[in-house]
Amino acid sequence: MSKGTVVLAYSGGLDTSCILVWLKEQGYDVITFLANVGQDEDFKAAKDKAETLGAKKVFIEDVRAEFVEDFIWPALQANAIYEDRYLLGTAIARPCIARKLVEIARREGAQFISHGATGKGNDQIRFELSCYALYPEVKVIAPWRIPEFYNRFKGRKDLMEYAQQHAPADLYMMTKNPEDSPNSADVLEIEFKNGVPIKVVDVKQGTSKSSPLDIFSYLNLIGGNHGVGRIDIVENRFIGMKSRGIYETPGGTILLKAHLDIETFTMDKEVRRIKQGLGIKFSELVYNGFWYSPECEFVRHCINKSQENVEGKVQLSIFKGQVYILGRESPKSLYNEELVSMDVQGDYDPCDASGFIRINAVRLRHRAKLSS
Amino acid sequence: MSKGTVVLAYSGGLDTSCILVWLKEQGYDVITFLANVGQDEDFKAAKDKAETLGAKKVFIEDVRAEFVEDFIWPALQANAIYEDRYLLGTAIARPCIARKLVEIARREGAQFISHGATGKGNDQIRFELSCYALYPEVKVIAPWRIPEFYNRFKGRKDLMEYAQQHAPADLYMMTKNPEDSPNSADVLEIEFKNGVPIKVVDVKQGTSKSSPLDIFSYLNLIGGNHGVGRIDIVENRFIGMKSRGIYETPGGTILLKAHLDIETFTMDKEVRRIKQGLGIKFSELVYNGFWYSPECEFVRHCINKSQENVEGKVQLSIFKGQVYILGRESPKSLYNEELVSMDVQGDYDPCDASGFIRINAVRLRHRAKLSS
Amino acid sequence: MSKGTVVLAYSGGLDTSCILVWLKEQGYDVITFLANVGQDEDFKAAKDKAETLGAKKVFIEDVRAEFVEDFIWPALQANAIYEDRYLLGTAIARPCIARKLVEIARREGAQFISHGATGKGNDQIRFELSCYALYPEVKVIAPWRIPEFYNRFKGRKDLMEYAQQHAPADLYMMTKNPEDSPNSADVLEIEFKNGVPIKVVDVKQGTSKSSPLDIFSYLNLIGGNHGVGRIDIVENRFIGMKSRGIYETPGGTILLKAHLDIETFTMDKEVRRIKQGLGIKFSELVYNGFWYSPECEFVRHCINKSQENVEGKVQLSIFKGQVYILGRESPKSLYNEELVSMDVQGDYDPCDASGFIRINAVRLRHRAKLSS
Amino acid sequence: MSKGTVVLAYSGGLDTSCILVWLKEQGYDVITFLANVGQDEDFKAAKDKAETLGAKKVFIEDVRAEFVEDFIWPALQANAIYEDRYLLGTAIARPCIARKLVEIARREGAQFISHGATGKGNDQIRFELSCYALYPEVKVIAPWRIPEFYNRFKGRKDLMEYAQQHAPADLYMMTKNPEDSPNSADVLEIEFKNGVPIKVVDVKQGTSKSSPLDIFSYLNLIGGNHGVGRIDIVENRFIGMKSRGIYETPGGTILLKAHLDIETFTMDKEVRRIKQGLGIKFSELVYNGFWYSPECEFVRHCINKSQENVEGKVQLSIFKGQVYILGRESPKSLYNEELVSMDVQGDYDPCDASGFIRINAVRLRHRAKLSS
Repeated sequence: MSKGTVVLAYSGGLDTSCILVWLKEQGYDVITFLANVGQDEDFKAAKDKAETLGAKKVFIEDVRAEFVEDFIWPALQANAIYEDRYLLGTAIARPCIARKLVEIARREGAQFISHGATGKGNDQIRFELSCYALYPEVKVIAPWRIPEFYNRFKGRKDLMEYAQQHAPADLYMMTKNPEDSPNSADVLEIEFKNGVPIKVVDVKQGTSKSSPLDIFSYLNLIGGNHGVGRIDIVENRFIGMKSRGIYETPGGTILLKAHLDIETFTMDKEVRRIKQGLGIKFSELVYNGFWYSPECEFVRHCINKSQENVEGKVQLSIFKGQVYILGRESPKSLYNEELVSMDVQGDYDPCDASGFIRINAVRLRHRAKLSS
Repeated sequence: MSKGTVVLAYSGGLDTSCILVWLKEQGYDVITFLANVGQDEDFKAAKDKAETLGAKKVFIEDVRAEFVEDFIWPALQANAIYEDRYLLGTAIARPCIARKLVEIARREGAQFISHGATGKGNDQIRFELSCYALYPEVKVIAPWRIPEFYNRFKGRKDLMEYAQQHAPADLYMMTKNPEDSPNSADVLEIEFKNGVPIKVVDVKQGTSKSSPLDIFSYLNLIGGNHGVGRIDIVENRFIGMKSRGIYETPGGTILLKAHLDIETFTMDKEVRRIKQGLGIKFSELVYNGFWYSPECEFVRHCINKSQENVEGKVQLSIFKGQVYILGRESPKSLYNEELVSMDVQGDYDPCDASGFIRINAVRLRHRAKLSS
Repeated sequence: MSKGTVVLAYSGGLDTSCILVWLKEQGYDVITFLANVGQDEDFKAAKDKAETLGAKKVFIEDVRAEFVEDFIWPALQANAIYEDRYLLGTAIARPCIARKLVEIARREGAQFISHGATGKGNDQIRFELSCYALYPEVKVIAPWRIPEFYNRFKGRKDLMEYAQQHAPADLYMMTKNPEDSPNSADVLEIEFKNGVPIKVVDVKQGTSKSSPLDIFSYLNLIGGNHGVGRIDIVENRFIGMKSRGIYETPGGTILLKAHLDIETFTMDKEVRRIKQGLGIKFSELVYNGFWYSPECEFVRHCINKSQENVEGKVQLSIFKGQVYILGRESPKSLYNEELVSMDVQGDYDPCDASGFIRINAVRLRHRAKLSS
Repeated sequence: MSKGTVVLAYSGGLDTSCILVWLKEQGYDVITFLANVGQDEDFKAAKDKAETLGAKKVFIEDVRAEFVEDFIWPALQANAIYEDRYLLGTAIARPCIARKLVEIARREGAQFISHGATGKGNDQIRFELSCYALYPEVKVIAPWRIPEFYNRFKGRKDLMEYAQQHAPADLYMMTKNPEDSPNSADVLEIEFKNGVPIKVVDVKQGTSKSSPLDIFSYLNLIGGNHGVGRIDIVENRFIGMKSRGIYETPGGTILLKAHLDIETFTMDKEVRRIKQGLGIKFSELVYNGFWYSPECEFVRHCINKSQENVEGKVQLSIFKGQVYILGRESPKSLYNEELVSMDVQGDYDPCDASGFIRINAVRLRHRAKLSS
């Protein structure tokens, strides 16, 4: 008799294939779910494999469009970066995948979910917190934390981990080595509204993209071709270990630079400061797996509010791993060439600056006098 | 009869030369001070010019070493960046120059100081707040805020401003255009102690530098040669205007990337988080001119404390405007390859992660149940 | 010929009466505006006085209801306190008065506004920033910053200032000395919705109030009778001076305690943390006069969003200057007696806590081992 | 044969007595440790009981002085309050007790420690994180998280918990009901240096105390007699549950008010702002059990640095549950009566305020013009 139904987050790889078989051995009915978030994968082969290995049902869903719109765009609005460097690609994908997985689990009446994330990583947390938040009664089976499983299969995981840690050169899938990238720049214009891109124009090609998924895919292509967005870092996992990570986020890197630029151009200075703090908070929450938490929802709401006037066009060139801002324009620009220039005085009286400075100096001078 | 003695922060250019003459016209004795912070300048010619124009005394001081050690190093420890992009080069130079200027003013018995910063910019604030903090009785003469002066000389300033705003290509003095930079990377190893570099080795050349000034100059050279650290941004001035800024900080950019790397490698995760917030605060303070404020001193003290274990070596390559981290090592590393790897379990029990996740989910699940 | 029309924020006192006369002397048409924000004032007498002194028009407006709803309620939602102690009463009144004053100035075609705030205080800033933000073309006449005025009238101001600084016992207008307050407590129940009170019931009297103004007035009355909300502090003014302030906010103090209680009862822990930071920011902004700034609007929006579920009833007793929370109840309570109790285990497995603790200890133990 | 030696944090109550017996049943040698942190306890009786129940060794240590100096004083410097209301009394005691317990465990060669904290509370976390940080190899036995134990003894715990939750009136041990407290105030003068009290003078009695423990005990006595420091709150536990807490901290409340006062009097405004943020962080860390973490050490260091000039005397009266500040004086005062007064103009030019305000209004006016 079945112990119940499990929906397994299936990757098509050896790892989750082992889990599929093991779950069946343990007496579960197994449904596999493989999300297409844009990875390079033979989905047909994965489906056949899962069926061959005994999956009761096999779901493969293209969640690319919702991944971009519901997850990447809010992260972009936040200028999300973890520990000053990591653009959170994987971290953002987890809640997207978990949402669909929970949807399937509820629909299929599954009481269990399972995944192939390891017992020391962040992904187990991101995945499970998302599932618990969306399906609080669910039971999680995490084989890499179950001794009978990991003692039996440890060898394989080790191999993969080892490969990942020691062969970084092969790890880059989307980006060319900048040394091998084109010797002339590509020039793009990205148009934003409400802090998200609504159009990208390839200036040299004369082509353009307008749907979120098309925009993001195109920027991944161009950025990848120019070797943009590779990093090799040591980061702090939520569980308190440091780990080495090698990442590539070509499209994300281009968008972050462009968004930062148009945001500073159109957003009030002091709003920006408060929003910067919220963005750092957002990044920590997402990294740690709290996408579906009240605080992350709250922060997303606030950040989204801050983006109301973040619109306009940014011109940039992409060359040898770098993104250069060439210029920007916006109907909501707060940059006032007249106000800032020397030749037009307008409403600004330079004498005011003397008072401004002297008042700012009141406590500094008072203190200096006391201590002398 | 003289109205008193002014020490003028002299640049050698047309601008402060006009001020020199004008101050004399107004009845002041003028002492000029020109600080060598590493800019490309003919100091001998500047001296001659000032003397010719009637300066009572002319001081030229090489403050490069103290600039690097007392100002750039603390900024590096802070990972100082203003509004996510600007590395604060100019902002850091002001308090260095002002300190020496005040020293001269006190020594020479001057009651006044003067400078050529404009009435809409940040430098007037940085300069004057520094002077007021170090010499609270001083009187500031800021000609660009005095109608009789600026109405007379406005044309010249305009020209310069115009040039600066509309000819960015010529503005870069230290950095090559990445398109014209070498086609092969340079590889460096930078060694840190207490969060500041103590040695840089050029791996291909086999050469090394060890004094702060030598290290910084060398990184400027290498970085400049590879076109590192150019940015074109719109930033928010302290006085609440947005302005366009074009900056190049080749050495600073390399150091920032290297420091971020060794810091994350050796610093506790949660200390890093708190310190990140202090670094943002530090950057705002410095940008706004508050180097010599109690809060900036306090923040510097705290940040310096955080750097106690920030030591080790970072390997990096410099290529076409980019800095790539190749690796890092440290006697104070908190990265534990054994702890983080799958094959050695050691003291870590993966089952603990289940409890960790479930406790983190307590409030998320509770809320989900309430709202269903 | 008139220099133009000034709207003067008139208090009815000697101070602004002098200003009225002086402005006329200077050649302005003067319109006086006196706002009723609940102060103890003979408005009829003030009107007569202004007219007698030559005001062209005299406006007296009861802004009490909008003061409570549009200004005090948002401050309450924020738990606004400046420097841990000051409840910002005066600071909140300024933007309320300024809004009405600008409305009058625009309607009457006045190009100028004037006020009686001194040149070292916060109120000049709060008042003028509000006016500039709402009426950017307006010109401000601040006589206490104009030498001809203040050199002539200084004596009078001094007297008042002196009295204020040296006779605190007489300063309290709304609150009894707790030593003379009733010897038995009053018991209230305050009901909140969206983080603002919608009803207060006097449990012993059996009476209740429901309009914002009635609620606030009643709490001032009860709190005042029990000597609630007196403080004697040194605070930091925006301009960087420390000053002594003696304040009484009986109703505000009761509301703050009640709001804090119902908020913690109904708001998620981590949302609360983020919101606490925003509340501190809000308090600084309001203290410094930035009510009508983009950042303050942004923060108010975010705080208001956080209050969606802040509803329920708080019971409290008021006695001898103190407010004691007796209990609270809410349909949106996140307090779960079952979850937290020992006898019902429910869904909570205590073993999870072991994992939670051990994972939190990972980096602490690792560090301890390294340093031993 | 013994499974090893356990040091049990013993309270003398039924609870930990059961644990003692149970641990022996399980085959451990049990050493009990009872810390005197100032609680009302018959230590002799506790000792006899532990011996009777079979403790191999019984340690009772008076840690009151180090509790005050090493734990309460740093919390006071931080103005530590959790969630705006809770003064962290218990939370601060845990790391103090744990430190001594670890000392005993190491000295006695015990591999295990045990305690009577429940599986849903904060104290288990505070206790264990402290032990893991100080003795990373230690093994923790937490019986209230072990099913065999808690299933057997649950009834007893329930009873106690029930009593604690439903009989708050009896819970107050140190403080009188304010309704029954004296009808005349006591007046104290507390002298601070480096942000901690060095002397308290009872002005009416003419007595004084100077050692940390004497000062703290005396303030507990006086505060308790006047009913100071009672609160009834709902708070957020680290594990994400809300729980009701009823606390009394008479001495701590007096000290907090006095410290806040002298701190604002002597500390620069902007340092205070940064330090306030650090204090909130400190409070969360301590509440959550991270006293012995790198981040808490870092924050303590920074806060301690901020206290360098926090010295002087605060006069206050204590009456019916309230603490009223009467005045303060300090050799390090930054309050300048002359600077702030109207009658002495000194170095301050009121006209500067106009410039200060107008520059602060630049972006507000610019925005208003754009949107009109």
